[in-house]
Amino acid sequence: MTRQELIALIRQRQSFLCVGLDTDLNKIPELLKGQPDAAFKFNKAIIDATIDYTVAYKPNLAFYEAMGIEGLRQLKLTTDYLHSLDKPAFLIADAKRGDIGNTSKSYAKAFLSPEGDFDFDSLTIAPYMGEDSVTPFLAYENKFVILLALTSNKGAFDFQLSVNKENGQRLFENVLQRSLDWGNPDNMMYVVGATKADMLTDVRKIVPDSFLLVPGVGAQGGSLEEVCRYGMNKDCGLLVNSSRGIIYASNGEDFAERAGQEAQKLQLQMAQAMKEHGVL
Amino acid sequence: MTRQELIALIRQRQSFLCVGLDTDLNKIPELLKGQPDAAFKFNKAIIDATIDYTVAYKPNLAFYEAMGIEGLRQLKLTTDYLHSLDKPAFLIADAKRGDIGNTSKSYAKAFLSPEGDFDFDSLTIAPYMGEDSVTPFLAYENKFVILLALTSNKGAFDFQLSVNKENGQRLFENVLQRSLDWGNPDNMMYVVGATKADMLTDVRKIVPDSFLLVPGVGAQGGSLEEVCRYGMNKDCGLLVNSSRGIIYASNGEDFAERAGQEAQKLQLQMAQAMKEHGVL
Repeated sequence: MTRQELIALIRQRQSFLCVGLDTDLNKIPELLKGQPDAAFKFNKAIIDATIDYTVAYKPNLAFYEAMGIEGLRQLKLTTDYLHSLDKPAFLIADAKRGDIGNTSKSYAKAFLSPEGDFDFDSLTIAPYMGEDSVTPFLAYENKFVILLALTSNKGAFDFQLSVNKENGQRLFENVLQRSLDWGNPDNMMYVVGATKADMLTDVRKIVPDSFLLVPGVGAQGGSLEEVCRYGMNKDCGLLVNSSRGIIYASNGEDFAERAGQEAQKLQLQMAQAMKEHGVL
Repeated sequence: MTRQELIALIRQRQSFLCVGLDTDLNKIPELLKGQPDAAFKFNKAIIDATIDYTVAYKPNLAFYEAMGIEGLRQLKLTTDYLHSLDKPAFLIADAKRGDIGNTSKSYAKAFLSPEGDFDFDSLTIAPYMGEDSVTPFLAYENKFVILLALTSNKGAFDFQLSVNKENGQRLFENVLQRSLDWGNPDNMMYVVGATKADMLTDVRKIVPDSFLLVPGVGAQGGSLEEVCRYGMNKDCGLLVNSSRGIIYASNGEDFAERAGQEAQKLQLQMAQAMKEHGVL
């Protein structure tokens, strides 16, 4: 999916919601537990119930790898299902990969190649290893690297905010700045946690046009209103992720229906915000 | 495997060699190409030929993920085979994972759990997301986190050497320093590239007793002699990795034999270095 197609989809669905498919076999409803392909069945029900209110899905690889090879098979069933639908969605592999150039090429093939098992539109990348750990992912046309800049967790304060002696910038700002030499808004996005919404102003000074993937609204305590105030641009420029608040809204037979209701609630707030900021 | 068992193994085999199983279906010998389980057959032959000269094996996950789900099945065949041998080896998942605490728990389960598909002794972790992205991996007894500190690639210069305005330390030094609050030499090691051997002195000031996993000798240009001069401690304290130089030493029918010869060459140099530094 190209950036222009993503922007059109956001306008059409009046939503910039990303549903995090952090599917944990211990947390899915009792009625699915023990069934064959339980993780996929759960994902399929969540997707069917939410896709009208959602523009993106983001499975976090950790939850599938924790189920072993079997988990990756169920992830493939999920991406195959998403590719089969008439309704498009932007697919994010939340994998936080990154390695030396030679090796990153292999990771890029694993997640982004149209001939691979998954054919994701994008994947998240950790920037610690620098340029050659990032650029191999940019070789696939109409696909995106989503670079970690400022994450939503407590550990973000350990290194991401440390100030560089030479240029006075914080590490996450240095990451944003350096990345301008590697990619552009058509092939690169950034992770910025909703729990640090006030810093979105600083982020937007460096990457005004890029999409930001924003986790941390809901369970982690971030505010959608603040994210929009400081982070929205003329194309919207945001994908706001919610995982637990949607997929585990209910643990009963109504889990999919409740997930759909939670997604719709966020979609309505998002439509309102886009109107207020002149995007719609 | 505990740290003491690893040290005993190093003394017994007179080696601190780690063989990087970066198995790429495009690079394996012609006689294996197209065979079922070709990657596993290649790995098994390499392991059989090198294990007497080696203390550790390090498959890089990227190469297996690039083969899709099938590649992970072949990785499992490989770790199952290693677990079945009478001769022990320290198993490293070169996965460079790291995510928020909740999610890192799932990655830890995937790679380190004795009930999981792989049961690795350790895995590599990227430190960008800080404390809660690292500590969940320390929950498994007698297993190790191997934290990226100073990597062997060109991109290492982008962020890892940036000097912190407050404490005057470079980022990799801040990572080492902060990690002392999270783990200890019995559950934590560090990646330090052989291409930056002169900085091993600075690394050893902060983590004198910890094991260092050192890639970059051979194809990437690092010197074993310099790594030993600046990095070896009284327990050896080093695992030096070689991948391409061993596993692709020959592309013919003699590939395993040649891999064994290359591993033995390094083992002899390593035994000599340990004698010179009083480890043996």
